[in-house]
Amino acid sequence: MDKLKLGVLRVLTTDDENILNIHGELLEKYFPEVKTETKCIPDQPNGIYDDESHKIAVPKIISLAKRWQESLDGLIISCAGDPAVEELKGILSIPVTGAGTPTAAYSLNIGKKVGVIGIGKKAPQSYIEVLGNNLIGYEKPHNVKNTNDLQTKEGKKEIIRSAQKLEEKGGQVIAFACTGLSTAKASLLLKEHISIQVIDAVFAEGLMMIGMCRYRKVFGGDNL
Amino acid sequence: MDKLKLGVLRVLTTDDENILNIHGELLEKYFPEVKTETKCIPDQPNGIYDDESHKIAVPKIISLAKRWQESLDGLIISCAGDPAVEELKGILSIPVTGAGTPTAAYSLNIGKKVGVIGIGKKAPQSYIEVLGNNLIGYEKPHNVKNTNDLQTKEGKKEIIRSAQKLEEKGGQVIAFACTGLSTAKASLLLKEHISIQVIDAVFAEGLMMIGMCRYRKVFGGDNL
Repeated sequence: MDKLKLGVLRVLTTDDENILNIHGELLEKYFPEVKTETKCIPDQPNGIYDDESHKIAVPKIISLAKRWQESLDGLIISCAGDPAVEELKGILSIPVTGAGTPTAAYSLNIGKKVGVIGIGKKAPQSYIEVLGNNLIGYEKPHNVKNTNDLQTKEGKKEIIRSAQKLEEKGGQVIAFACTGLSTAKASLLLKEHISIQVIDAVFAEGLMMIGMCRYRKVFGGDNL
Repeated sequence: MDKLKLGVLRVLTTDDENILNIHGELLEKYFPEVKTETKCIPDQPNGIYDDESHKIAVPKIISLAKRWQESLDGLIISCAGDPAVEELKGILSIPVTGAGTPTAAYSLNIGKKVGVIGIGKKAPQSYIEVLGNNLIGYEKPHNVKNTNDLQTKEGKKEIIRSAQKLEEKGGQVIAFACTGLSTAKASLLLKEHISIQVIDAVFAEGLMMIGMCRYRKVFGGDNL
């Protein structure tokens, strides 16, 4: 079986290849049927973490995606805010997804009461829309302002605290609303501290992208 | 890569191997990384189509699943009503899913306004719970009482009519709430008649089961 060639578009600017490729490497580990290539947008070393950083990223993502699509089977904008995804659906001829909608949608497959952990002031819009009344709570780890803060010892302690709060609140599953939590290996970290399942955003974006590529192969067409 | 060995439990009783194996064959076509084995419960030639037929199927499904699990990586109860799935989650040591929750959850990955087509009086409970306010309408094809009625020429005309109604109502995606619609190849049929995407229940159950098996392999454990 030929491997699916997926583009992984990072919204965190870095020239450190190890940091750049981390989502792609996770995707290849989780889904041996994919081969990834990673690129990042320029001039956003702290990624997307609020409305302003989201807004300025959108045209950069669209520009990069348009140039890149010809060599890809599908494109993942690896960010829980799904930046530029709706716009790109009307532009690209390959399947495109962010991390947010897939994570919210997949979490409902595992449990109906979903708690969300992210780095913005509230849950990203896609989580609010997909989860509706199934969204039982949102937590931002204390003192975490951007994706890099999630990687520190203090940041990890606060991730645990956030998850415990959501479990106490009756959450049946926790959906990550930042791919930085994947980079921080928070799924494995939380295993020791909570007993409900955590949905990793990089895992979910990969699964749903595979779904979209397969669906198109089987049923054909842009819409079906 | 070793293929995942999935059990496909049919809630339609048949000794016709072609009919019995149709979901398994579709799953293997959609997802080359799986190998399926199919069994069916006894004494329900018209499957599950109302509360009573659902209720009497549950203990049969549990009994069959318990005897079968040792030789499987995961078990799919291939029915949109998710019969016995919650009960089995507490009993089996392998991932288990129905068709309903996966279809409802995956449909939210594709569009936020979801129309549902099924054969019961209303949408199955899992669709109502997962979709919440994103459920914009439910249609039962006229004169269709059970899964077999979906396979007739008249049944197919009514499936088209139901889908068109949901598209007119503003649906961005249609979720099938009966695996008989997969058997009837309704996804391909509808392609010519509507312009929104249709989520096939056998496709969705396969994708989500692969997700559950992979998740367990990567992150380990029963809960995580």
